[in-house]
Amino acid sequence: MGRMGAVEPGLMEAIFYPRSVAVVGVPRGMKTGRLFLEALLKPGFAGDVYPVNPKADEILGLRAYPSVESIGKPVDLAIIVTPPGAAAEVVADCGRAGVRAAALFTAGFGELGSEEGDRRERELVAAAESAGVRLIGPNCMGVYSPSVGLASFTDLPMETGDVGFISQSGSLTNFFARESMARGFAVSKAVSVGNQLDLDAADFLTYLAGDDATRVICMYVEGPPDSRALFEALRAATQRKPVVLWKSGRTEGGSRAARSHTGALAGSYAIWQAMIRQTGTIEARTIQEMVDLVVALRMQPRPRGDRLGVVTGPGGPSISAVDAAEEAGLRLATLDASTIEQLAGAISAVGTSPKNPVDVGLILYGPMDIYGEVTAIAGGDPNVDGAIVLGGSSTGPEGEAFLSLMRGARDGFRKPLAQVTLRPPVDAQLAKAYGEVGVGLFPTAERAVQAYAGVSAYEAFRAQIS
Amino acid sequence: MGRMGAVEPGLMEAIFYPRSVAVVGVPRGMKTGRLFLEALLKPGFAGDVYPVNPKADEILGLRAYPSVESIGKPVDLAIIVTPPGAAAEVVADCGRAGVRAAALFTAGFGELGSEEGDRRERELVAAAESAGVRLIGPNCMGVYSPSVGLASFTDLPMETGDVGFISQSGSLTNFFARESMARGFAVSKAVSVGNQLDLDAADFLTYLAGDDATRVICMYVEGPPDSRALFEALRAATQRKPVVLWKSGRTEGGSRAARSHTGALAGSYAIWQAMIRQTGTIEARTIQEMVDLVVALRMQPRPRGDRLGVVTGPGGPSISAVDAAEEAGLRLATLDASTIEQLAGAISAVGTSPKNPVDVGLILYGPMDIYGEVTAIAGGDPNVDGAIVLGGSSTGPEGEAFLSLMRGARDGFRKPLAQVTLRPPVDAQLAKAYGEVGVGLFPTAERAVQAYAGVSAYEAFRAQIS
Repeated sequence: MGRMGAVEPGLMEAIFYPRSVAVVGVPRGMKTGRLFLEALLKPGFAGDVYPVNPKADEILGLRAYPSVESIGKPVDLAIIVTPPGAAAEVVADCGRAGVRAAALFTAGFGELGSEEGDRRERELVAAAESAGVRLIGPNCMGVYSPSVGLASFTDLPMETGDVGFISQSGSLTNFFARESMARGFAVSKAVSVGNQLDLDAADFLTYLAGDDATRVICMYVEGPPDSRALFEALRAATQRKPVVLWKSGRTEGGSRAARSHTGALAGSYAIWQAMIRQTGTIEARTIQEMVDLVVALRMQPRPRGDRLGVVTGPGGPSISAVDAAEEAGLRLATLDASTIEQLAGAISAVGTSPKNPVDVGLILYGPMDIYGEVTAIAGGDPNVDGAIVLGGSSTGPEGEAFLSLMRGARDGFRKPLAQVTLRPPVDAQLAKAYGEVGVGLFPTAERAVQAYAGVSAYEAFRAQIS
Repeated sequence: MGRMGAVEPGLMEAIFYPRSVAVVGVPRGMKTGRLFLEALLKPGFAGDVYPVNPKADEILGLRAYPSVESIGKPVDLAIIVTPPGAAAEVVADCGRAGVRAAALFTAGFGELGSEEGDRRERELVAAAESAGVRLIGPNCMGVYSPSVGLASFTDLPMETGDVGFISQSGSLTNFFARESMARGFAVSKAVSVGNQLDLDAADFLTYLAGDDATRVICMYVEGPPDSRALFEALRAATQRKPVVLWKSGRTEGGSRAARSHTGALAGSYAIWQAMIRQTGTIEARTIQEMVDLVVALRMQPRPRGDRLGVVTGPGGPSISAVDAAEEAGLRLATLDASTIEQLAGAISAVGTSPKNPVDVGLILYGPMDIYGEVTAIAGGDPNVDGAIVLGGSSTGPEGEAFLSLMRGARDGFRKPLAQVTLRPPVDAQLAKAYGEVGVGLFPTAERAVQAYAGVSAYEAFRAQIS
């Protein structure tokens, strides 16, 4: 529940699907604030856009208004980029115009750790309360909702996906959105929450947990204003869909840095870990881990058991996969004698191994069908809970052909299947095709195994509580 | 010292700078073995190449010989790709032809864990001893020496660099060579050692330690035939240049997998860790870490002290950098009051921080000079041992301009400087330019900090023993 009370019906829809947006304080010249207007024009926001600047008649070809109230038409969402001293006044103006919510890029509040910052913060909250305008931020990048072309940054992808992101860092929202495309998925809705003076991570988590367009929720959190509310929101959300949480400010120094970034009181990491464990939240410790976990969560079916079957061409990477699996709490499956016999019949006798990790040897010419065949046999063994394949192509028609082999094998044994390409980078279109058919694609064996382990633990938790 | 005795003078030169190479057992058709011949023809090996196959007159446009002896000209290095049963006989043939060394791709020896494999192994060693031919492998990819166009795989880069690589996995040699280009460095010499029946990792390490063309040595090791020899070689090598070692088969399962990959007895990981610590070797735990460490080792000057100055634009990534720094045993430097004052004068008042991590705020338009200015001030503080900058471009003219800012700042304060680009992928040419001027370039803050910490610990060890 935000500082200004419960989230009223329709508020989140006004934020993520606004029919009209005012950008207040857009500078006339080439300054950073102008970007927020460009971000709406370039990808093509579906609704109306109103620049507000009392000193301009026109900005970027649009008629500029002296105030929000003077627009004279309904405005759902205001994006505020004024200096901090003007913020309270602008919010009052928004109230007079009937604006539902305001996202403030404007910074210079509690995060300053100064008397003046704290005073401005009190004035802003008071203005918002009296105006009936809900706040996002301040000190945030705002809302990214690609299905309606609402972007908080100029070059964000406009493809709509099913992964939600709640972030206390605007830069990470942008990074996450771009990485998602490279890894074959896309964002449904994202919001940067900044100082969380009103609406906070728990509010957005609760909304995304009930949002049909969002199937996985990721969060980057420095520190919430209300840990109890976040705990409850996490507990409820994880019943409905997986939540991946990256807590930063884990260390003494990181915690101090978080204080001056968004004014967050980072709290003890041990308490965070307990909260993560008790709510069945999946923890990521870097942005890389977070994105890897999303890829693993999109595997069909999802990883659950801890007994891995590994199929490889190259020897070295398969050993590091086994090391990483044990270090992540997974086990190498012991194959049935009949499976080993079948595998021995499928592969050549030398430079190979029919035992787990199953080594097909160095294959360089001709079709890679052997990978499909061997993966089907190894994955079909009753002692295997999920399979990881090291090898294959990651671009072009060869990449598509390999995916088709992987998909065929997976459809046969109906267990999670991940592939580690040893030839990065992966073509973005191909990554998307992997995501669509539910085969995981990872850049290294260690990252595949760690992500598998994270999802497997989440599924075990779910099975326990249900 | 290899199983067949000390490395005689000129042997390593014959291996890495052969004047002529015979490829024995090249198949006439499109089979894997043929690749080893193609690998010499495509990039253009500088010396003579002789295919040997008693059933062919010509292969890939070259005259084929029935035996190595029948070539009738001096052959320095033989690459053997025959079936395992023929290996001993071919080595005897090599001896009659005066071949110095043979690299055997041929597998099917001790790694099989069978009576037959062990018998073949004994026969191969006996044949090599009686013929006076030194062995590389068997079950390996052989030698990669780009300065003479000697490649063990068809699409390896032919640029020559200063990083040596000794690997018990041929696939990882290829992966490492390709990754090196993406990260701005290149390989001087690489060798895949396979089962290490004769020449082993310690022999090649000793050679590369004395090789002027090699400034950093990387190793991927599953298990040596002789731990004592490797210990001594590491101790001697680390006095001369940094050695990065990735030990795989750390876990029970990984150790078993290593046994069937190259017949390696992986040994207890605790013993390995002691050896790594006592010899001042730098440990990597993944191929990613290994490559990151090379990038960090190329920083000028090298990381040494543990007090980091962090300069950032985005807030979230800087907090994760601080977390990662503390988790890696580094500290966030406490800046002098005069430095903070100077920084406060250089940056704008809002959405920024003049304390470490120094936050320049969101800068999107115009020149990025503020980054150079702020980095110079923060890095110049006497309490800072090294600086990490989060931000900047990674491609095109903007990337070059940013590098020039970074280089200018670093030249001023003469401490190690790393930059984390938040916009991967990095242009390969630009990565090379970073390497050449000695500014580290990393894809994430965590990876930059971990690599910095690894090199810093190595330099501290060196300072202690010298």
